[in-house]
Amino acid sequence: MRAASQIVASRILGLDPGLRATGFGLVDKLGQQLRYVASGCIRTEGTELPGRLKTLLEGVREVIATYEPDLVAVEKVFVNVNPQSTLLLGQARGAVICGAVSCDLPVHEYTALQVKQAVVGYGKANKDQVQHMVQRLLGLEVSPKGDAADALACAICHANGGEGALATLGNRRRAGRIL
Amino acid sequence: MRAASQIVASRILGLDPGLRATGFGLVDKLGQQLRYVASGCIRTEGTELPGRLKTLLEGVREVIATYEPDLVAVEKVFVNVNPQSTLLLGQARGAVICGAVSCDLPVHEYTALQVKQAVVGYGKANKDQVQHMVQRLLGLEVSPKGDAADALACAICHANGGEGALATLGNRRRAGRIL
Repeated sequence: MRAASQIVASRILGLDPGLRATGFGLVDKLGQQLRYVASGCIRTEGTELPGRLKTLLEGVREVIATYEPDLVAVEKVFVNVNPQSTLLLGQARGAVICGAVSCDLPVHEYTALQVKQAVVGYGKANKDQVQHMVQRLLGLEVSPKGDAADALACAICHANGGEGALATLGNRRRAGRIL
Repeated sequence: MRAASQIVASRILGLDPGLRATGFGLVDKLGQQLRYVASGCIRTEGTELPGRLKTLLEGVREVIATYEPDLVAVEKVFVNVNPQSTLLLGQARGAVICGAVSCDLPVHEYTALQVKQAVVGYGKANKDQVQHMVQRLLGLEVSPKGDAADALACAICHANGGEGALATLGNRRRAGRIL
C-alpha cells in the first residue's frame, strides 16, 4: 500500500530475465526525479525446467503484488551463440513476461544497447559502468549487484523515455570529461 | 465436469508450443484404452510479443479450466538454425508451460523423436504419418490438423509411457509389413 500523501507519477518494475536468476528493480518516477524503491533477484533451483519456470512466474507475480508497479520494463535478451542456451533463456523470458501480463501490466521491451545508452550514455558500457551509474542516478549508498543493477537500469531506461533524456545527460557527462 | 459414471484413470493434455499457433489435444487413458476428448489450436495475433504470450498463457489456462486434465505433456521444441526464431519459440514455450504450472499441473517433456517413436514406431516419421497414426489410434473419423495432431501425438506418447508400449506396437506393425 502506498501512503495517500505520496505523489507517484509512475512506479516502474525493471526485469532482467535469466533462467537461474532474474533480477528485478523498482523505481518511482516523480516528475523528473527518480527514486529507488527496491531491488533483488529471483533465484531458481533444481534441474527441472517446468519447476524453474514456475518459480520465475510466481516470483515476478509476488514482486508485483508486494510493490504494485504501474508497468514493467524488460531487457531483451541476447541471442546466444549456443542455440540451447538461447532456447533456455527464451523460455525464462517467456515466464517472466507471463508474470507481468498475468497481472495485467503493460510490458515495454528494451535492448541492452538502449539500456546502456540511456543509463551510461554509451551503448557498449560494461557491467561496472552500469552499476556505477545506477548507484549514482538513484543516490544509493552501495552499488546494487549485477542482476538487480541491470533490472534497475532497465527501469531507469524506461523512466527516461528509452534512450531519451538520460542519454543526453550521459552525453553531457562524457562531453564534460573530454573538455 | 466429468460424469460420476466415467472411470477415467487419467486425462492427458498434450501441447505443441508455437508463438503463432500452439496446438492442444486431450486424451483419456482408461486402462490400456485411449479415448479422444478434444483438440484444437490457440492462435495469437498482432506483432507485440507480450500480448501474444498473454494469449498463449490464458489460452492454455482456459483449455485446462474447460477439460480438467490431470497432467500435461509438452513437446520439446527444435533448436532452430535461426537464433532469433529459437528465441521466439523459447518464449512461446515458456508461456505455454507457465499456463500449465500456474494451474498446478505436472508437466512432462518429450522430444519429437520420442513422440514419433511412440506414435508411429519410427523416430523420423513425417507429419502425414503422425496424423494418420493419431487418427487410427484414437479411432477418429477425420484426420486431426497439424498442430492439434502433434499435440495429440504428445499426449499419446505420455499415455504409453514415453517410448513404451506403442513403440512396441509400432514395431510389430512394421514387422508385420515386412513379413
